[in-house]
Amino acid sequence: MEISSLGEFGLIARLEKKLARRGGVRLAIGDDAALLDTLTSPVVTCDALVEGVHFRLDWTSPRALGWKAIAVNVSDIAAMGGVPVAAFVSLALPLSMPGRDVEFVEELYAGMEEAAATYGLTIAGGDTVKSPSALMLSVALIGNAPQPVLRSGAAPGDALLVTGTLGDSAAGLELLLQPPLAIDDEARAFLLARHHEPTARLREVQAALTVPGAVRAGLDVSDGLAGDAAHIANCSGVTLEIETARLPISKACHALAGALGRDAQDFALAGGEDYELLLCVAPHQADEVIAAVQAVTGTPMTAIGRVVERESAPVMLRRNGVREPAPGGFAHF
Amino acid sequence: MEISSLGEFGLIARLEKKLARRGGVRLAIGDDAALLDTLTSPVVTCDALVEGVHFRLDWTSPRALGWKAIAVNVSDIAAMGGVPVAAFVSLALPLSMPGRDVEFVEELYAGMEEAAATYGLTIAGGDTVKSPSALMLSVALIGNAPQPVLRSGAAPGDALLVTGTLGDSAAGLELLLQPPLAIDDEARAFLLARHHEPTARLREVQAALTVPGAVRAGLDVSDGLAGDAAHIANCSGVTLEIETARLPISKACHALAGALGRDAQDFALAGGEDYELLLCVAPHQADEVIAAVQAVTGTPMTAIGRVVERESAPVMLRRNGVREPAPGGFAHF
Repeated sequence: MEISSLGEFGLIARLEKKLARRGGVRLAIGDDAALLDTLTSPVVTCDALVEGVHFRLDWTSPRALGWKAIAVNVSDIAAMGGVPVAAFVSLALPLSMPGRDVEFVEELYAGMEEAAATYGLTIAGGDTVKSPSALMLSVALIGNAPQPVLRSGAAPGDALLVTGTLGDSAAGLELLLQPPLAIDDEARAFLLARHHEPTARLREVQAALTVPGAVRAGLDVSDGLAGDAAHIANCSGVTLEIETARLPISKACHALAGALGRDAQDFALAGGEDYELLLCVAPHQADEVIAAVQAVTGTPMTAIGRVVERESAPVMLRRNGVREPAPGGFAHF
Repeated sequence: MEISSLGEFGLIARLEKKLARRGGVRLAIGDDAALLDTLTSPVVTCDALVEGVHFRLDWTSPRALGWKAIAVNVSDIAAMGGVPVAAFVSLALPLSMPGRDVEFVEELYAGMEEAAATYGLTIAGGDTVKSPSALMLSVALIGNAPQPVLRSGAAPGDALLVTGTLGDSAAGLELLLQPPLAIDDEARAFLLARHHEPTARLREVQAALTVPGAVRAGLDVSDGLAGDAAHIANCSGVTLEIETARLPISKACHALAGALGRDAQDFALAGGEDYELLLCVAPHQADEVIAAVQAVTGTPMTAIGRVVERESAPVMLRRNGVREPAPGGFAHF
């Protein structure tokens, strides 16, 4: 069905029916603004995804795109130590392109609602407008963070912990960019899923925060580990030292790197969009944090280095016995 | 200066220096998310402006566009009875177009900051990304609304009050769309300013709310009075009856309508983007509300009709002694 046949309010009414209202939201779609329950420690983030820049619809499904748009924002709230409450979605829709019909928008929202259900938030409002060409999707997400985790809290001696594995999303992107590569179907599916439908480490942060006073700083790895580690280093006035041999790398990422004749560590250090969590943790509590996260969520956390006094470079790598400054991360321009 | 020469983080750092942090914001730009002070009654809205759909940069300056992007969101928060606290700006920037340089973005942010200062909020975060073609600007605005004004609270007998004058923005748009029209410079400047740099009626709502229990329902008139009145009618299960002779219309709008051989009342009823406030007020308190708003803000409010029991049409017009259903408002598709 064509969107123009429903009209703006018809489309919104149709979408609204499929969105569940969860805790913390008093009034969602239908008035000038949404009303939420009291937030003692409001935390807010905002991320935009633009067609042709951040995604291609011949590579990803609208459902996966919807999931990702919510998940990447949940990842930011999680990285602040927060729990998400309500998402607001700005959607600029090109009406003249084939396939951009009501079903397309419903699939996009189905993916967003799936992520909303997974992370316990409500899609509580937004704005749906026409776009002259590219599809643009901007999500603002509001949550509550009574124990905020900042980038600025790292201190020399802290242990560096990271969830899951690094480099998978960048490896998945290589699968899309390169001619067919000789890796098995399971590895291929894993890497593509990590690229298209990332997981936000919401429960993992909450589990880490159950260890009193342990978490000193953190962020989610969205622009590549080396670049994001530099953000913590610069905000905290310290240097982060990473032992490359300790980087958690999946078998699938190793296989892909091997097929390309490249080093999997480069994917782990420079690859963006992993949405894993990098935490700086009091050294005597590192094992306790790793155990708590593993026990509650099943997600492994790996100690990959330590915080040291500030040096000239924000991030230093220890690789094969050599200590050297890390190259930078991904920038959007 | 070209944006690519600064890079994403360089651009953000440059913009951030010109943004003031006002009350209610604990941590703004620079971490994964922003932190706000406790919000007892959070209210959130979100509006997107897309180049070629909502604005043309040969018609408006980047500074005026920045102002408008904030003001239209403040208008939604105001219409809910709220006070804005923090704005989050998603900006998708086409880098390849001439004139879309660092100075352009700085002007855009200067306009946003001007509105932020006027309405007492902080631009506390956002996302700045590349766009393949059109400029898109999406603002999410969070505020506090301890006495929320909903669309659903209108009851038969309520008086309909509207701030300022209606139809000016649509008249300003006609000036841009039509060949040169014979109206004086002052009227022209007034109508264009009303179109490009609308005023959010924030202080006016707050003044109206000082009259205890008087305000029962309300919204801001963004899609045309007739269409927006229908939203209140449908949400409240009533009909709104408007006396067209009472519609507040500026001299400039009359002059423009005259030059086009059209009825100024049509601009007032169907024209979008006025961002005036339509309130449903307890009838015995209408004069008190009008006086309070006038005293505090200097803005006139006009009684334009009343709420009646639900009829088949959501909005009825009384025009020249004839009572008839109103035509609809503006829809975005």
